[in-house]
Amino acid sequence: MGKKILIVGGSALGPKTAARVRRRDPEAEITIIERSDVYSYASCGIPFFIEGLIPDENKLISNTLGQKRDEDYFTDLKDVKILGKTEALKINRAWHTVTVKDVERGWIYDIPYNRLVLGVGSSPIIPSIDGINLKGVYKVNTINDAVSIKNELFDGAEKIVLIGAGLIGMELCESFYEYSSSITIIEMLDRIVPNLLDSDMSLLLQKYLNSKKIHLVLGTKAQKIIGNDGKVVAVETSKGIRYPADIVIIAVGVKPNTELAKESGLELGPTKAIAVNELMQTSDPDIYAGGDCVENTNLVSMKKVYCPLGSTANKHGRVIGDNLTGGNTKFPGIVGTTIFKLMSWNVGKTGLNEIEARNNGFKPIVSIAPRTDVSDYYPTAKIFILKLIADIETRKILGAQVIGEGDGIKRLDIIATILMSQGTIEDVANLDLGYAPPYSTAIDAVLHAANILRNKLEGLAHSISSEELYQKILSYNDFIILDVRTVEETMKQPFQDKRVINIPLEQLRYRLRELPINKEIITLCKTSVRAYEAERILLGSGFKNVKFLDGSMEAWPY
Amino acid sequence: MGKKILIVGGSALGPKTAARVRRRDPEAEITIIERSDVYSYASCGIPFFIEGLIPDENKLISNTLGQKRDEDYFTDLKDVKILGKTEALKINRAWHTVTVKDVERGWIYDIPYNRLVLGVGSSPIIPSIDGINLKGVYKVNTINDAVSIKNELFDGAEKIVLIGAGLIGMELCESFYEYSSSITIIEMLDRIVPNLLDSDMSLLLQKYLNSKKIHLVLGTKAQKIIGNDGKVVAVETSKGIRYPADIVIIAVGVKPNTELAKESGLELGPTKAIAVNELMQTSDPDIYAGGDCVENTNLVSMKKVYCPLGSTANKHGRVIGDNLTGGNTKFPGIVGTTIFKLMSWNVGKTGLNEIEARNNGFKPIVSIAPRTDVSDYYPTAKIFILKLIADIETRKILGAQVIGEGDGIKRLDIIATILMSQGTIEDVANLDLGYAPPYSTAIDAVLHAANILRNKLEGLAHSISSEELYQKILSYNDFIILDVRTVEETMKQPFQDKRVINIPLEQLRYRLRELPINKEIITLCKTSVRAYEAERILLGSGFKNVKFLDGSMEAWPY
Repeated sequence: MGKKILIVGGSALGPKTAARVRRRDPEAEITIIERSDVYSYASCGIPFFIEGLIPDENKLISNTLGQKRDEDYFTDLKDVKILGKTEALKINRAWHTVTVKDVERGWIYDIPYNRLVLGVGSSPIIPSIDGINLKGVYKVNTINDAVSIKNELFDGAEKIVLIGAGLIGMELCESFYEYSSSITIIEMLDRIVPNLLDSDMSLLLQKYLNSKKIHLVLGTKAQKIIGNDGKVVAVETSKGIRYPADIVIIAVGVKPNTELAKESGLELGPTKAIAVNELMQTSDPDIYAGGDCVENTNLVSMKKVYCPLGSTANKHGRVIGDNLTGGNTKFPGIVGTTIFKLMSWNVGKTGLNEIEARNNGFKPIVSIAPRTDVSDYYPTAKIFILKLIADIETRKILGAQVIGEGDGIKRLDIIATILMSQGTIEDVANLDLGYAPPYSTAIDAVLHAANILRNKLEGLAHSISSEELYQKILSYNDFIILDVRTVEETMKQPFQDKRVINIPLEQLRYRLRELPINKEIITLCKTSVRAYEAERILLGSGFKNVKFLDGSMEAWPY
Repeated sequence: MGKKILIVGGSALGPKTAARVRRRDPEAEITIIERSDVYSYASCGIPFFIEGLIPDENKLISNTLGQKRDEDYFTDLKDVKILGKTEALKINRAWHTVTVKDVERGWIYDIPYNRLVLGVGSSPIIPSIDGINLKGVYKVNTINDAVSIKNELFDGAEKIVLIGAGLIGMELCESFYEYSSSITIIEMLDRIVPNLLDSDMSLLLQKYLNSKKIHLVLGTKAQKIIGNDGKVVAVETSKGIRYPADIVIIAVGVKPNTELAKESGLELGPTKAIAVNELMQTSDPDIYAGGDCVENTNLVSMKKVYCPLGSTANKHGRVIGDNLTGGNTKFPGIVGTTIFKLMSWNVGKTGLNEIEARNNGFKPIVSIAPRTDVSDYYPTAKIFILKLIADIETRKILGAQVIGEGDGIKRLDIIATILMSQGTIEDVANLDLGYAPPYSTAIDAVLHAANILRNKLEGLAHSISSEELYQKILSYNDFIILDVRTVEETMKQPFQDKRVINIPLEQLRYRLRELPINKEIITLCKTSVRAYEAERILLGSGFKNVKFLDGSMEAWPY
């Protein structure tokens, strides 16, 4: 008789754990119980199903070969028993049983276990707003939701209001973009994706969304959802403004499902998700947990974080599967890499952002580097902006953010890899990345960003952030903005301020007399490469107070 | 008076060094001497200029803004003096001068230096073949060559013979593909890109080139180039076969330009390139060298290698610039990341390949993992094959190779990053890479490959390589090939052998009786995921001798 392994939850973590156990132990009796009747489906694909990129929802609940992952699939393939439409009511830790309920038949009974695994996932946070149960209001956490939304879109629904401008809101914004005549995003905080991006980067993303005619209502609460005949017609904000809506999406975030764990006395962590050790064991060593219901260690801050992702759930499943079958595999933690696609922009973050870095006691130094993703003379070249953050004292990399059309995601993965080994600025600058014109530049964006940090720490490069310059402009200080772009460039995209002097970089050395030597000078160009060069020229020629604008025009959000 | 810094060579290393020196030292007197009159041009772009992707050769000799990098450009922008058409004849180390020759005027004179930098680059290796000087025979190391080739193509040249199937041969194959009715590649060794890819991977690439109707003549020497009226018409091989040619490209490799260094008594290293220390100093501490004329330390083998790349030259330039101006910056070395595009395939290598690993005393274990680059249900998904190599004893990653349509290059960069920190299999498996369906899979290809290695080292996964299976098939051993794909898949792409039994994976558990328990069984599927699963099922059911085919059909080159 094999060991009895009971798994609660049939989404990502459960099936992965079951498969791993089976590969290591042909004898184990593995049972998965799942509240719904959909198993192991690709919930991350939902936004792209709504978008129409994935034509058939069955793609998300099937394997590569189109086989639906139903009870038979798991029994035949993995020798795993699945009990669908079965809810776990209670863990009886002393007796090593779980009391479950067959949802359809109403039966309640106990299932014994030697080891229990909780893969109970997360749920959308539902704000307490009037009208939340109207038809047309969705949370988008099941395929059924997604199918209903698609049907509404086919039936002519056009006006979309998204409540929440976090990760899920952004992903859904992408989904609706092609269909909708009007997308409004209402966000309580004063900027979008506040948990991921620093304000400089999120302002740039806002600028992009504005250019796409997406209506952002920031710093505002959705107060009430207005209906007519039981169907949503508008969302009213705390400011009393009504935004018409055919579809309203609640996307304010998710919370871990911890009721079962809490009621049976398992410890929750500081984030209020289930606490687990490196072996993915809960406070009861016979009970493991993983996936969206547990917290993780952020390996940069070494603090517990709640960061539910499918890729992490898969790793948890493998670790739990090992440890259920005599292994001793550890899951060290995450660095919080989070990415999303927003129309033609690629956006993401890894490690800590600047604010998190400060809040965790680091002394961050940053570079904002716009750069083409491949050689600028290669026809597919596109620009993106990389924000790289390091600690001044240890020179360790703390995190990075990317936004833009160019392939920044690939660079984020490189930084995520560096973070796992606690790499320094120099480690990034010395990376031997693949170089060929269709793939990268001779000095790749991540190396370029690291070099900027080195220049800053060496005292060669002195920069001012876009926010600082903006404040400076507003306060009418007596300084000069030196635009070193070509005349053509400045005509096409002028920096609108009367303090601007334009001297193209290659003329700067012999036109120095046009600049007052005692005034503060802020240099700028397109990407800040020339602005930095100008700073070096001026400082080398006796000017004392020169800074370049970090990221220059490409990263100017105002 | 500033320090006199003399730089020999105006391509990548020289200008980069000059710029770095100037940023750190406004006083230095910087002079670059260059044999030709083209400076700091993007030679890596030449294949794409020939291909027509870069319409104008000026793009390669200009900066992003279209400014040509001529003498004025460097003087105005960097305050650097450039002496074009000036050749360095001799280094007089005792006097700290270089004897140079003004090529146009014939003047010979001495230039003094405090510090000298050699960025003298590399030259194509010219095999001693009759007819090498015929019109239509090119080495493609200058823009002029590239322009002449383009002109010939416009004039109707169609039949291309490439001598050499290394990196340059492959890049040029890409260049000519759209134009040519016939491309023949003649290679002395018995396979293509022998210095980069292991035979399993290069065989797959050969299969791809064959499918593209590119004619590979392997294990054969180009003996003679045949002309008519001074113009090439054919290449004759050592086997006496003539291949008609309008254009012949010599692409057998490059060698470092070391004459100047050698004659002045500077040490060459084991690779016969100029030897430098971590500060990029030659054996004369007043003379630095970098770029294509020096050797580097491979950080995996810790041996000296000759691996000239523009991305490395840029790093050298920064290090030299620092050290010429009071810095103490070290260049640790490279991991030999090399990538190229071949029609719609992306190909590359980092670290050591399997043979190099063995030759360097490691005990390699490998995985061959075909995988989609993004979620398989996402419409842009494309497959590529990742070969990951680790050392059995230390579990350290040794290298990786990628080929295929999918974005393997991004994964190669991740492995290159891991190599720089001497990461292990577990470090790769625990990476927290960005996951969203448009960018990756929930278990990314690199993690998947690392997991396969873990399974192998744990004794869970037992595989056989395509080469081993091929030999086994030829020697008519008594064994069974169990194809666990669906019937539809096997009909579309059968594995042609009479030993094949087809049992789709999901039927395997209840059709075990159809298999003889005492025979050796080799399982296969499309990517080897199911083949591994089948192995686990069979071993769990009492079968003793089961292996899966590494990479299965996707990586089967025969």
